[in-house]
Amino acid sequence: MDKIGKLSFTTAAYLRDFKGDIPLTTLGNYLLHAATQHAESRGFGYEDMVDKQTAWVLSKMAIELFEPLNQPEPLQILTWIESVQRFTTTRCFEITDSQGKQLGYARSIWAAINMETRRPVLLDDEKLAPYLHNRPCPIENPQKIMAAETDSTPHTQIHVLYSDLDINRHLNSIKYIEHTLDLFPLEVLENKHISRFEIAYHSEGRYGMELEVYLKQIDDKKQVVSF
Amino acid sequence: MDKIGKLSFTTAAYLRDFKGDIPLTTLGNYLLHAATQHAESRGFGYEDMVDKQTAWVLSKMAIELFEPLNQPEPLQILTWIESVQRFTTTRCFEITDSQGKQLGYARSIWAAINMETRRPVLLDDEKLAPYLHNRPCPIENPQKIMAAETDSTPHTQIHVLYSDLDINRHLNSIKYIEHTLDLFPLEVLENKHISRFEIAYHSEGRYGMELEVYLKQIDDKKQVVSF
Repeated sequence: MDKIGKLSFTTAAYLRDFKGDIPLTTLGNYLLHAATQHAESRGFGYEDMVDKQTAWVLSKMAIELFEPLNQPEPLQILTWIESVQRFTTTRCFEITDSQGKQLGYARSIWAAINMETRRPVLLDDEKLAPYLHNRPCPIENPQKIMAAETDSTPHTQIHVLYSDLDINRHLNSIKYIEHTLDLFPLEVLENKHISRFEIAYHSEGRYGMELEVYLKQIDDKKQVVSF
Repeated sequence: MDKIGKLSFTTAAYLRDFKGDIPLTTLGNYLLHAATQHAESRGFGYEDMVDKQTAWVLSKMAIELFEPLNQPEPLQILTWIESVQRFTTTRCFEITDSQGKQLGYARSIWAAINMETRRPVLLDDEKLAPYLHNRPCPIENPQKIMAAETDSTPHTQIHVLYSDLDINRHLNSIKYIEHTLDLFPLEVLENKHISRFEIAYHSEGRYGMELEVYLKQIDDKKQVVSF
């Protein structure tokens, strides 16, 4: 089987945002979908992991977009495994239009956890190694993100509700992106393009939690949000 | 072209709810997707409407599910036009598993509006009539829904944010379903099955609005929510 997975996604008009763009949340779902399909068809997907009482968890992700995703045609997502460490694996994504023009890239770090203890487990190198590929992914790695709450008061609170939960009863990783985008005034989202979005997951939000959200402006191009 | 449209949808584990079910919001998106594809490939889709300065708006929908949507295989959605009136058309949906077992039905009422005036326009009978089909859709029509606010105080408020907006800058029709489900305690959603869900859209939510949400228990099996 090919080391690189490739999928196309069509985003109907009614699923686009107020600018007619594919929302970053929808792109995030496409990336997870492509990752899921790639892993499943190569023997290390959700079902294979559950059989061993383990589950993949997304630890970090960085997405860079060279331009807004407002093409009417389908997006193409290519995905491959860039490296495998003891406890984490790095998966890359290339985002192109239907003619193959590069619109952006993403790099994600995944860990496998034991479903009971929620602790990381050693990765099955033999399963993953045959699929390593060195296709270029010319964006910076996800960085260590400085917490935003050190010198500010909460910007708002998020109450974790039914629609936030995933199948493990934790706040869905894409819902964090949605809640983050919702912090910005519409004028900002209208007039600015998100060229880089980075997220790191530290602990698991659960139903009924009131999450305090902190927002910190680093410079005129960069903001940090902490939940 | 066949009068009945047919599409399959796979819902990966990470997109399911805490029970492993396909959420009603996701089903709602599948129904809209099937409707969009059906209309587009038969000459009365979004682009055809925009060319005439008109847009389809969903006016009412009723969904009935005979059992929870927790099948691991793809769902199949069949959709067809049941009738055309002067200002509205009725579109039905049959929801089955991959073997064709009926899991539920939906019936939806659509109007075409002028994009400038937001007023209904006469439907193009010639375009739609050739696609009428009398396949059975054995559920009750969407009813007139009695407002819930007559004898209660607001249950909560919804602040309309970026992620709520659709391409017309109105509160996305599926987001109303999400906000509605989020009103119920998790124990209720865990222990009960939603056998019928009905929604009627009266006015258009816009960015920044604070929507008061009213909830009224009709009997032990039925609740009404008004935004």
